[in-house]
Amino acid sequence: MDTQWDKIIIGIDPGTNIMGYGLLGVKGKQPSLIVMGVIKLNRMDDHYMRLHRIYERVKALVDQYLPDEMAIEAPFYGKNVQSMLKLGRAQGVAMAAALSHEVPITEYEPRKIKMAITGNGAASKEQVAAMLQRELHLTDDQMPDLLDATDALAAALCHHYESQKPIQGRGSGSWKAFIAQHPDRVKR
Amino acid sequence: MDTQWDKIIIGIDPGTNIMGYGLLGVKGKQPSLIVMGVIKLNRMDDHYMRLHRIYERVKALVDQYLPDEMAIEAPFYGKNVQSMLKLGRAQGVAMAAALSHEVPITEYEPRKIKMAITGNGAASKEQVAAMLQRELHLTDDQMPDLLDATDALAAALCHHYESQKPIQGRGSGSWKAFIAQHPDRVKR
Repeated sequence: MDTQWDKIIIGIDPGTNIMGYGLLGVKGKQPSLIVMGVIKLNRMDDHYMRLHRIYERVKALVDQYLPDEMAIEAPFYGKNVQSMLKLGRAQGVAMAAALSHEVPITEYEPRKIKMAITGNGAASKEQVAAMLQRELHLTDDQMPDLLDATDALAAALCHHYESQKPIQGRGSGSWKAFIAQHPDRVKR
Repeated sequence: MDTQWDKIIIGIDPGTNIMGYGLLGVKGKQPSLIVMGVIKLNRMDDHYMRLHRIYERVKALVDQYLPDEMAIEAPFYGKNVQSMLKLGRAQGVAMAAALSHEVPITEYEPRKIKMAITGNGAASKEQVAAMLQRELHLTDDQMPDLLDATDALAAALCHHYESQKPIQGRGSGSWKAFIAQHPDRVKR
């Protein structure tokens, strides 16, 4: 593991066409970009090959960077049951890659992430990207072509901001919070 | 691997409360029960711990029995987007356990499995279990208390029956069929 960081957060924006990822290193209270990018899936026809690719790539990122926590952008509502089943599968394989390394997962609704980053729950992807660039002091060269990457990094940064809040202020979706509250329920 | 079998099929009936599994060994054209059971999840409050448990147990089964193929019971329609997202995640982590070992996955609708086993797409779980008992020569002691196990085994047996059919008769959901048709699309 890269010992220059106190904590590493992997942010994931799962999708069945393009999946974004962003790794944030935290030193003290200061977050910095480690790497961000996308996994392009839209050239693959086969659903299982897409799921396989998501699993492989997220697992490779987890193997390489050994993140302490995963933050995932998770819309809770969708157009129809078909698309939600596919989205659930994409989320599931990404989560499996984290769970296989015992990395706790917290999920955030898109609105919550936008609010945390820009102060506006209805902000555009471009506004989120611009705020990330400012907050993390990113050069134009470091900014990605596809905003799925900044969306994923935004999930990681949102999780970092949440981690700075007192425990009772956190979302109930946190596995870590669950473990903290129910140490007896966890198999060591 | 158990070399007494020509092929091993793992059947999975994913659920967020109880997940069933059944392993079928095939020698020549003759299928036999290896093991079946359930993964109980309903005592766990936390969604991620459930997903973790599914992933761990399915991975342990894949590690132990090294199945050649996975058959999964996959309803394509559900009550609401919430339940489909959760079901998708449960399917996703189970699939990740197979995909991590390069085990090809085929999914079957519940109706298709019931039809293959009993000749009636609207058969009850009890009818499916009774037919499995007869076809696989199972003693009463071998029959499980929970029919999620026989449902999973039925998915595996359905997949075995489908494998006996000529290629063009198979479902389009087969990864193996996709690979056979597009060998250039597969990374070796």
